[in-house]
Amino acid sequence: MAAWGERLAGVRGVLLDISGVLYDSGEGGGKVIAGSVEAVARLKRSGLKVRFCTNESQKSRRHLVAELRHLGFDVSESEVTAPPPAACRILKERGLRPHLLVHDDVRSEFNDIDMSNPNCVVIADAGESFSYQNMNKAFQVLMGLENPVLISLGMGRYYKVTSGLMLDVGGYTKALEYACGVQAEVVGKPSPEFFKSALREMGVEARQAVMIGDDIVGDVGGAQRCGMRALQVRTGKFRPSDEHHPEVKADGHVGNLAEAVDLLLQHADK
Amino acid sequence: MAAWGERLAGVRGVLLDISGVLYDSGEGGGKVIAGSVEAVARLKRSGLKVRFCTNESQKSRRHLVAELRHLGFDVSESEVTAPPPAACRILKERGLRPHLLVHDDVRSEFNDIDMSNPNCVVIADAGESFSYQNMNKAFQVLMGLENPVLISLGMGRYYKVTSGLMLDVGGYTKALEYACGVQAEVVGKPSPEFFKSALREMGVEARQAVMIGDDIVGDVGGAQRCGMRALQVRTGKFRPSDEHHPEVKADGHVGNLAEAVDLLLQHADK
Repeated sequence: MAAWGERLAGVRGVLLDISGVLYDSGEGGGKVIAGSVEAVARLKRSGLKVRFCTNESQKSRRHLVAELRHLGFDVSESEVTAPPPAACRILKERGLRPHLLVHDDVRSEFNDIDMSNPNCVVIADAGESFSYQNMNKAFQVLMGLENPVLISLGMGRYYKVTSGLMLDVGGYTKALEYACGVQAEVVGKPSPEFFKSALREMGVEARQAVMIGDDIVGDVGGAQRCGMRALQVRTGKFRPSDEHHPEVKADGHVGNLAEAVDLLLQHADK
Repeated sequence: MAAWGERLAGVRGVLLDISGVLYDSGEGGGKVIAGSVEAVARLKRSGLKVRFCTNESQKSRRHLVAELRHLGFDVSESEVTAPPPAACRILKERGLRPHLLVHDDVRSEFNDIDMSNPNCVVIADAGESFSYQNMNKAFQVLMGLENPVLISLGMGRYYKVTSGLMLDVGGYTKALEYACGVQAEVVGKPSPEFFKSALREMGVEARQAVMIGDDIVGDVGGAQRCGMRALQVRTGKFRPSDEHHPEVKADGHVGNLAEAVDLLLQHADK
């Protein structure tokens, strides 16, 4: 067992990233990362609190949870913190009516939001819907607003699917920021607000929580800035250079979720 | 006549931006900006040196010049400084074999470039070819390189066509920069090297030259940083806020190219 495992003393709650930690998404529902189904089950049996904290914004929570359950994971919609519901709360609070640049699958999350006469743009991981035409439409909406508001569901650089690495929403948000001269408001990891809402929903303080993710910046760096500990798994989009990242140092690296759970069950408070 | 017109004393050469100054591109070959055909003719008759300096990277020079001649402009390919030939010189000098993320119309400019086993990406204004699939392919090529090189033909934010504002290459370059953690090398305005090559081809020193463009940052700011004077026309992508830009102050604003030429013929050295 890794010597740094002792750093996990006092952990009472675990936030789990989904894509790249539980499974790699892709054609036909994706592929389980070996040992992860059992690892989630062991965590849940251990008495530690568990919550799923994802930047998934291409699928509705319903679709995501159905995919995970089909793969054997014990997970329900109410255990998932995801950007679309957080964005809907913000839109309602501020009276914002979005033009959506999102994947068709996630539109249903915005069903009770007024979208007439848009006064902001919400961008999410739209995948193939990131056509020039759709990007240009969002650009034109922003350029037509006196006070342009751009809300980005996450700022991921890329993610891994079974066929390889894929561009995530972050680059497309940067494109609109540059073209329109605006700065996006990020809803999702690594926004502190987003981590805090996941901690609230789990009922654990930041100093008692650990984040487990495959993204050195979005998962590990973001969680640490909130006062949490954070482990990076060597699955999903992990790259060896992440272990020498110029700005972010994980509290520990593990081969995969199963190894992380072994360490947690040895060192954490249960 | 504008009082600042006296600042044009000593001008011997004029660099003209094309899109937004001579014409607005668009369906059916675009639309002349009123008075510009005659303004170019008068400039050429005046004895001032004239060169066209464009970031057009969606059309080949041949196509661009044919479009302009059809609209009545007196212009030939040899009078146009454009990014693709400048990029080809760089690719050859450095032994770079590009993966092209460009519009089909401009591929012919790269006909004598080796594109086997790519070791860099060249991105240009690809228009409708900025599909998710094409962006992702360029991303994957860069992520597969040990020393990723990204060459961007211009960094334009947007341009105006007859139907409205359109996203230019700059945002898409920012997207790849962010996703891959690289910084693009820009070939085109506002790169000083590009302005200098246009000045060399015109045979005029920077201090004796004026740039006329519709882009406050790319045309006006870029030319000024090279020691040129620069006028912004209130046509093309001009927006009233450009006259109070936080970083760039044009040497003068004119309603259109015809007005700029009136001032030049009054004040410049002929």
